[in-house]
Formats: sequence, structure tokens, C-alpha cells
Amino acid sequence: MKLKFPMVAIVLEVAMIILFGYFVEYETEQINLQQPNTTNSTKVDRFLELHSLFQDVHVMIFVGFGFLMTFLKNYGFSSVGINLLVAALGLQWGTFMWGIVHNHGQKIHIGIKNMINGDLSTATVLISFGAVLGKISPTQMLAMTILEIAAFVGNEYLVGEIFEASDIGASMTIHAFGAYFGLAVAGILYQPSLRKGHEMEKSAYHSDLFAMIGTLFLWMFWPSFNSVIAETGEKQYMAIVNTYFSLVACVLTAYAFSSLVEKRGRLDMVHIQNATLAGGVAVGTCADMKIHPYGSMIIGSIAGIVSVLGFKFLTPFFTTKLRIHDTCGVHNLHGLPGVVGGLASIVAIALGASKTSTMAMQAAALGSSIGTAVVGGLITGLILKFIVRGQPSERNFFDDSVYWEVLYSVLIKDVSDDYISECFVQQKPKCLSAS
Amino acid sequence: MKLKFPMVAIVLEVAMIILFGYFVEYETEQINLQQPNTTNSTKVDRFLELHSLFQDVHVMIFVGFGFLMTFLKNYGFSSVGINLLVAALGLQWGTFMWGIVHNHGQKIHIGIKNMINGDLSTATVLISFGAVLGKISPTQMLAMTILEIAAFVGNEYLVGEIFEASDIGASMTIHAFGAYFGLAVAGILYQPSLRKGHEMEKSAYHSDLFAMIGTLFLWMFWPSFNSVIAETGEKQYMAIVNTYFSLVACVLTAYAFSSLVEKRGRLDMVHIQNATLAGGVAVGTCADMKIHPYGSMIIGSIAGIVSVLGFKFLTPFFTTKLRIHDTCGVHNLHGLPGVVGGLASIVAIALGASKTSTMAMQAAALGSSIGTAVVGGLITGLILKFIVRGQPSERNFFDDSVYWEVLYSVLIKDVSDDYISECFVQQKPKCLSAS
Amino acid sequence: MKLKFPMVAIVLEVAMIILFGYFVEYETEQINLQQPNTTNSTKVDRFLELHSLFQDVHVMIFVGFGFLMTFLKNYGFSSVGINLLVAALGLQWGTFMWGIVHNHGQKIHIGIKNMINGDLSTATVLISFGAVLGKISPTQMLAMTILEIAAFVGNEYLVGEIFEASDIGASMTIHAFGAYFGLAVAGILYQPSLRKGHEMEKSAYHSDLFAMIGTLFLWMFWPSFNSVIAETGEKQYMAIVNTYFSLVACVLTAYAFSSLVEKRGRLDMVHIQNATLAGGVAVGTCADMKIHPYGSMIIGSIAGIVSVLGFKFLTPFFTTKLRIHDTCGVHNLHGLPGVVGGLASIVAIALGASKTSTMAMQAAALGSSIGTAVVGGLITGLILKFIVRGQPSERNFFDDSVYWEVLYSVLIKDVSDDYISECFVQQKPKCLSAS
Repeated sequence: MKLKFPMVAIVLEVAMIILFGYFVEYETEQINLQQPNTTNSTKVDRFLELHSLFQDVHVMIFVGFGFLMTFLKNYGFSSVGINLLVAALGLQWGTFMWGIVHNHGQKIHIGIKNMINGDLSTATVLISFGAVLGKISPTQMLAMTILEIAAFVGNEYLVGEIFEASDIGASMTIHAFGAYFGLAVAGILYQPSLRKGHEMEKSAYHSDLFAMIGTLFLWMFWPSFNSVIAETGEKQYMAIVNTYFSLVACVLTAYAFSSLVEKRGRLDMVHIQNATLAGGVAVGTCADMKIHPYGSMIIGSIAGIVSVLGFKFLTPFFTTKLRIHDTCGVHNLHGLPGVVGGLASIVAIALGASKTSTMAMQAAALGSSIGTAVVGGLITGLILKFIVRGQPSERNFFDDSVYWEVLYSVLIKDVSDDYISECFVQQKPKCLSAS
Repeated sequence: MKLKFPMVAIVLEVAMIILFGYFVEYETEQINLQQPNTTNSTKVDRFLELHSLFQDVHVMIFVGFGFLMTFLKNYGFSSVGINLLVAALGLQWGTFMWGIVHNHGQKIHIGIKNMINGDLSTATVLISFGAVLGKISPTQMLAMTILEIAAFVGNEYLVGEIFEASDIGASMTIHAFGAYFGLAVAGILYQPSLRKGHEMEKSAYHSDLFAMIGTLFLWMFWPSFNSVIAETGEKQYMAIVNTYFSLVACVLTAYAFSSLVEKRGRLDMVHIQNATLAGGVAVGTCADMKIHPYGSMIIGSIAGIVSVLGFKFLTPFFTTKLRIHDTCGVHNLHGLPGVVGGLASIVAIALGASKTSTMAMQAAALGSSIGTAVVGGLITGLILKFIVRGQPSERNFFDDSVYWEVLYSVLIKDVSDDYISECFVQQKPKCLSAS
Repeated sequence: MKLKFPMVAIVLEVAMIILFGYFVEYETEQINLQQPNTTNSTKVDRFLELHSLFQDVHVMIFVGFGFLMTFLKNYGFSSVGINLLVAALGLQWGTFMWGIVHNHGQKIHIGIKNMINGDLSTATVLISFGAVLGKISPTQMLAMTILEIAAFVGNEYLVGEIFEASDIGASMTIHAFGAYFGLAVAGILYQPSLRKGHEMEKSAYHSDLFAMIGTLFLWMFWPSFNSVIAETGEKQYMAIVNTYFSLVACVLTAYAFSSLVEKRGRLDMVHIQNATLAGGVAVGTCADMKIHPYGSMIIGSIAGIVSVLGFKFLTPFFTTKLRIHDTCGVHNLHGLPGVVGGLASIVAIALGASKTSTMAMQAAALGSSIGTAVVGGLITGLILKFIVRGQPSERNFFDDSVYWEVLYSVLIKDVSDDYISECFVQQKPKCLSAS
């Protein structure tokens, strides 16, 4: 089966080229056609204006998500590598799907908005990737990218165009959706050995520092994520400011509760890497509403607390009782805070912070996002399990050496016994697989 | 005392929310109030214009300072983690303090300038953090954040509003201030074991590479730091260009002198990580003056030399004779180059490069910054030592495991004796604590 | 000879300060002189407009190239450190050389364009650095920086001003030039021990992750690299969009072929770190032409394939048969894709995608770039070998400890035999040098 992955990747890329050949054009072609005597300055100027916010989001996708998932000691190559692969496919497929749905099958004219929507579609898949990290093959991830983005674009159309709900930072349509989709897939792909904790599912000192690179780039650029599709001017300004203050407040409560729930009052790197970001998720839906800076800080504070408690109490419960193993704890970083975000928007609208949507439509959007995600995730999980196949065997979970050429460093006693020397071998030495 | 840290963090966050509730509003509310019929476009448009420079500074605060301090082999979690915690509190408190002082107690309207000032206030604390790194508790750092920003804002008001001195890149008000404040605190918290070099105060190969991530992001974005609060147009242009050329020149002299002062002509990572940045500090005060590109290069060259010589000769002297232990050598990166920056501005004004300030006012600003920092630092040190308390014991200095859940990797001989296997344990094995 | 490096660095910096003192002025001085009554807003405003794209390129130079080369397990300090040193000199020398040639000896007025050209000149040297990484001294690299930028600016003038060829993303003038220049130098500095694979020329797990930081920042910001000198508006828009789609397609084919060419279908980190970027190189020359998004995707797909095949088949051939050892495989990332880029532009012009250049002029530009690079590289190699000298001895290749203070971690058996303790020593333990 060694030809399966390259063949799938090549066929998908050829398919993308054909789709783009038929459906995608430069932005300027449309304008030149319609108004032959005007300059095409407006849309193209707008391009560079939003380019800097777009770049921030782009960094979140590749460095942010990619490195956040490198926390496992033997799964760094796959985390950052499969993240890049999935994102490269997702950007193409997301650009196409979003464009074709919103243009009702007409030609897509590539502007900065399409590229932003490509990144946002991809973010959804990368969140779900966190739930199944270490337990899925690259080929399965390619298939999941195609399926999930289709479901995502469908739900996003429903929420935005039919319900006309407000979700500027996509707490519901990206974060809650991605988390519950991933959990549904993880439930289908569950294996019994995950229950007691897999011996390879551990972080190491350096892998936790690599993960902090991801955390920090996500944290710093989250205001751009929540504001990039906002109306320029006041709305965009508020989306940046609200997200900024939600995030800073979230850090304080995440640290406080991380220390509170640990026996000796120590901090847990898992909480710091993840729960400090929950404020960005939770403020997403109402980021462009007049919730006031202190309102954002309250939302962020709650998100930090909810996220840490989720890691401490819900994740073990999910693993042991619900047979859903969530590798990165995406339920605590994206799922719960996404739900908090949806609920916060209902409260905000009740308090008069926005008139662009109604409480009922927000509730419908939240329900639709979770519902579509769970159904889509279950179907996708079944397709991956029975049709795509190729899941790694349990004992190879969380292990880069299944998909990557890895040189193992082994330590061998010198004859002189003075030093212990370091050698590099291709086969995983048996001692490393002992617990 | 395991409840102390979470309680302090929660109380501080609640206090911030209350302060923001009473004193902080959106920028647009002010404008709408005063000019009900005009659009609020001006200030909000300005927001996105400066947003890209602001993001650069934001990256310096979190990734730059955070990773620069990860050079210690067993203190990476605390370096990057407490950096994030301190910054999150500092952004809130700095925004509030700066706003309330400059608005004379009136409501603060959050714009990009306030957010920039929040970052700048925080930078000051993070510089001081470098001096006490590894020898202070998270709770003490929270207290120091509150106290130092209050002193910082006071001195900054004095320098800018009373002396009307020029300090666009804040060589004096941030860098010299932060360094001498930190040294004063470090002097109070000194412990005898630091004299001979603490066994845990070492870098490792990988921790030095992590630190270079910090160095590079600081280096690349320093022109934004020095220009972000400059007048747009010519002044901002000059601040960027001057800082850029000071930095490139500084790299050459820092490398040359690092090699010169080492016995075998080798380079020292400590110098490369820090002294290459001294050019950014030293050109700060006169960054927006007409000092010509070659003038910037002379300032940068001098800063690189001064900084390396400081690391080689002053730091050991401070540790052994003055009983001031400066973990990251902030005196060499921020203190001395900050003083060079203040003196350079006096020379520049004498040579006619600027008419916005006088030599006497620049000297007053330098004196005030150092004086306020030392007095503020001594008072803060005493408060931390006798009132806040909770400093880690000497033998736990520079050790993440005091505040973090850390899994230690230990190597245990296999029964078969062929390989040495790796296990992870929660307790620090005794062999690791042997020198 | 321990004084050689610092003396060379200091003399070069002094020379730069003198050159800048005589030839370089602020942009505003020119304007004030010529039009005393107008504001200098135009050029200075343009400065901040392009500043965000410039920053992206700046990050590529320092973090991108710097960390991409940290993949070797014992050469991370030199990779990121000499990269910084070379770049700091290259920015000054490149700014001067480019300015003086294009201004025909007149004064250079520093604007954003000069700073961008400084970065681009430097990129060329850093590409060549990849070919000789680990086999050359810092002093030799300083000399190579001076010589190569002179040759680069000469060729760039020929291509742009004489041939009037189109090469917006510099596939030919930077990438092909840098690669073939580096290969020529590597050929001259070849040592027999490289043939069988040097024992220190290995990556380690963590060093490969550090390298991915470089890969990702290069990948994400490549659209800025290819568009930063493009005409604003439509041309810049197309350069960004075309590069973006070439890169995403390239990732898919690079992954597919990496898996295809490996015996067990695994992925190889060397391919992922490098070949995923080939799409950015190959689309460079025609990035601002109307090649359509699907055209970019075809170019990117081909580049990914060519690059992986180059690593698999050409690099071993070069090492063993041609006696050219290319440490980072720059021929596969920059050389071949650069040639593909030149050829693609000929095809694009043939198909009517651009009228700004002719097929013949593009061919001349490609020939000139490769020819100048090879001749310049051979001359430079001979100068480095026989005049500058100081190349490390073969057994010290790929070893940081020749130029850096490095503490080695050695593992020593405890008397109790229970644990193995870790100590840090200054001398490389002999066991580490055993294979």
C-alpha cells in the first residue's frame, strides 16, 4: 500500500488544477470585462490593505497550529508536517468550495477575501486534526480535509446566508464546528489502549517549548483572526480591541486555575499552551459588538476558567467513559469556548450590544454548527475507518517513525566505561518502546 | 501557601475588570459624543495604519523577550510562561495607568496608541524580569509588574511632559529604566550562592537555539519599536532607517569583540544573543533626529562593543563585588546601551541634529530615569522580600520544577546492558542535582 | 590567527561607515533640495506602504534562511549565527553596491527600495552559504559576501538594464545565481572525506524541528518576496496570488514524491523542509505575468517534483562524481527551480502572458545569471582557498565547537549505578567523535 498516499496526493492536486482551470480567474478580469474604461484600482488596492491582517492569519495556520501540536515528544514531524500538507490542500479546496457556493456556481475571482476564506476553511480542519493527532494516517487526513471543508462550507452558508446570524470571529462556525467534528471522528477511530494512557502520548521538555511557539503566534495574532472579515472601520476596530482584551484577561484566569487544580499548586504546560487562547475563541462571535472592553475581559476570564476545568475534568471523562480520545484537548480550547462564544452573543444581543442578528438566529447558528459537525464527523469517521482505511495500528500511535525517516539516538556504553556514546540508528531500539 | 498565587492573579484580574468598567471606553464613543454628525473615520482609520507596526512590537514582547530568556537549560517554561503572564497583566495595567495619567483622570478611549503604550510599559517590566530571572516567584513578579509600571509611568510623564525631553525609542525611559530597576531588585534579592555560579545557571545547546528565536524577532522588529510612537512621515521614516543601520553595524562589532575577548577567539552565544541588539537600544533616543545613516552606524558600532565588554568584565564584577546578580545581563543589553543612547542624544543635539529638546533636558531625563529606577527598584525589592515574600529557596533557583509540572527524562541501564532506556519521572533524580 | 576574524569584521564595518558617510543620505534631503516648497510626503508615505512586505522579506532573511540551515545536529549556532553576521554585512554592502550602480555613482538616498534591495542582495549570499555550510570559516564568509554581492549586482544590472528581461521574483538573478555561485565555491573547497558522508553531517530530531521554523516562515512569506519590487496595483496583486498558488500545489507534489522515492513510502524531512519551497522559486520570474492561477499551480507542481528528484538522484551524483558537495541541497531548492522559473517565463511569453520582455531576452538573462554565477563562484572559491584561507580542517566540518563556546553534555554513570548523570564539559568527549 506504499503507493496509496502519493497517488491520492497527486490525484487531488490534478483535480485542484482542473477545477481552478475551469472556475477560477484573477479579480481584474471580471472588472475589465464589466467596466472596460475604469481602472481596477478599488479591489486591488483593498488587497494590500487587508494583506497584513491576512498574513497574521496565515502565520496562525502554519506556525500557530503547526507548532502548537508539536508538544508530543515523538510526533513533532507529523504535527508540523501533516499540518502543512493539510493546509496546502485545504487552502485550494476551501477557496474553491467557498467561492463556488457563495457565487452560486459562477466563476470565482480570486481576491484577498477568497484567500482569507481559504485560510478559515483550513483552520476548521486543523482544529479537528488536533482531536485525532497521532491516531490517523496522512491519507486519511487528506480525505478528511475534503469531506470536512464541504460540511464546513455548507454549515457556514446556512449560518450566514439563511439564519443571517452574526459570527464574525467564527466561534461557532469554525471553533465549535471543528472541535465537535474532530471529536466525532475520534470517537469512531477510538482504540481501547487509549483508555489507560498510551505510553508514547507524552510531552518532553523541548517539545513543550516548541509548542509554545505555536501558542504565542496564535495568541498574538488572534485579534487579526477575529477581525479579518469584519467591515472596515468601527467594526474591525472593535473586533481587534475586544479580542485583545479578552485574551489578556484569559491568561490571568488560566494561570490561576491551572495552579488551583494541581495538587501542589504548580502550573501545567498543557493548560498554558491551550487555555490562554480560549479567550480568543470565546469572544469571537461578539467581537464586533459593543460589549465594551470590560465585557470582553469578563468573557475572556470565563473562557480561561472553563478551558482549564475542561482539561482537568472533562478530558479524562471523555476518554474513559465516552470512549472519545481528544489528543490535543480541542474540546477545551475550541469546543467549550466556542459554545461560550455562541451563548455570549445571545447575552450580548439581549443586552442590546448588537442589532445585526437576533437571539433566536444565534441559537439556531450554534445548534446548526454543533449538529452539522457531529453528523458530518460521524459520517467522515465511518468513511475513514471502512473506506479510506490505513489507520496506524495502536502500538504505532503518536510515533513519527511510521511516516517519517527518523534517526533514533541511542546511547551505548563505551568499552572504557568512562563515557556513554551517542549513535544514530534507523530502527527504533527496543528499549525505547519499553514503558 | 499554594492558594496565594491563584488568589493574587484572580484578585488582580477582577480589579482590572472593575477599573476598565469605570474608566475605559471605545475610541468611537468619544467622537460620537463630541461630533454627532461626523464619521469617526479619522482615528479608526489611523488604527489600521499603525496596526502593522504595533503587531511587530507585540511580537517582540511575547516571542522576542519570551524566547530570549529561554537560554537557561532548566528554566524555559518559566521564561516563556511567566513572560506571558507578566505581559498579560502589564498590558492591562499599563493601558490603564498610562491613560489615567495622560488624561488627568478622565475616561480613557482605547485606540492603537493606548495599546502601544501598554506594550511599552510591559517591555520595561520584562527587561527587569531578565535581571531577576530564576530567582523570583510568579506571585512576586505580579506584584513587581504593578509597582514597576506605576514608577515607569511616573518617570515617563516627568521626562515627556515636564522636561519635554526627546526619547522616541525610549533608550532612557524604558531600557535604562528597566535595567536599573531590575538591578536594584536583584541586589535586594541577592543570595550568597550566586557568587560562585549556581550549578543550574547553565545553558544547553538547544536552549541557546530557542533563545536565538527571541533574539532574531527582537532584532528584525526593533525599527518598529523605535518608530511606533514617532510622528508619521519624515520622523517615522528616520526612526526606522536609523535603527536599521545602527543594528546592522552593531552585529559586526559584537561578533568582532565576542571573538576578541575570548581566549581562543571563539564566539560566545551570550554575546550574540544580546549584544547584537544593543544597537537598537543605543540609537533609540535620537532615532528620529537627523544623525545620518553613518551616524547611526557609529552609535550601533559603539553599542555592540560596550555591550560585549559589559558581559565580559562588568557582569562578573557586579556579581562578586556589588552583590548584584543579573541573570540575563540586562545591564549590558539595556542599561549601558540605554545610557549610551541618552549621551548620544546630547551629542546629537550639540551637533544640531534636533531642535525639539535641549542638552540639559536630555541630561535631566537620563538622570531622572536612572534615579527613579534605582529608588523604585530598591523599594520594590524590599516589598517583595518582606511583604509579598515567597522567593524560591537558593537551591531551587533557575529550576522550572518548582512552579511547573515537569517530567524528567532519566536514563536507566537495561538489564540486558545493550541499551540504555529513557524513562520519565516526576521527581528530579538526585544525579541531576549533582554538579 | 585568532585576531584575523575580529580584525576583518572591524575593518569591514569601518569601511562601510566611511562609504555611507560619503555616499548615503536620507531620502528627504534629495527632495528638499530639488523642490524646496513641496512636502516630502510622497516617497516617505510610500515607505510605510511597502514596509509590511519589506518586513516579511526581512523575516525570511533572518529567521527563514537562518533556521532552515539549523537542521544539522551540531551546527545550529553557526547556521543561525553566521547567517546573522553575513546578513548584517550584506545589507550594508548590498545597499551601497546596488545604489551606486543604479545611481551611476551619484549619492544614494535611502528609501524602502534600497532596504529591500539590500535584503535581496543578501538572500543571494545566504543561498550560496547553504552550499558550503559547515565547511567554511566566518572570515571566509565575510569575504564571500563582499565578492558575491559585487558579482550579483553586476549580473542584475545586465539582466535588468541591458537585456531588459523580466524577473520579478528573481528566480534567475537570485535563486539560480546564488545556487550556482555556491556550487562553484563548494567545488573548489571540496575535500575527499565528504564523498562517503561525513560522520557529523547528520540531523537530529530537534534540529529538524528547528529547521521547520525556517521552512514555514519562508513558505508563508514567499508571496511577499516575489511581489515586493513589483509595480503596485495589478502587477503586485498577481505576483502575490500566483506565488501563493504555486506554493500550495508544490506542497502536494513534494509530499507525494518524497513518499514515492523512499523505499518504504515514508516521508523524508529533507524534502519537506526544502522541496515544499521550490514552487516559490519556480514561479518567481513569471509571478507578475498573466499565467492564471492554474498555470501557477502547474509550475508549482513541477517544481516540487523536480526538487525531490534532485535531492534523491542529483545530490549524490554531484557529491561522488562531480566532487561538488552541496550541504543544504541548494541546487534542488534554488538552482533547478530557478532554471525552471526562467524556462517557464519563456513559455509564458510564448503563450502571450506578458509583453514586457521577449523570449530571447529571458534566455539571455538565464544564461547570463548561470554563467556569471559559475565564473564568479570559481574565482571566489580560489580567492577563499588561496588568499583568505582559514578553512576548517576536514575533521572539524559541521562542528560548532570550532567557532563557538559549546558546553557538551556528557552522560556519566553514577557510582550507585542507578542513574546516569549529566555533566557539561568544554572539550568534545572522544566518544562523541567515534562513529
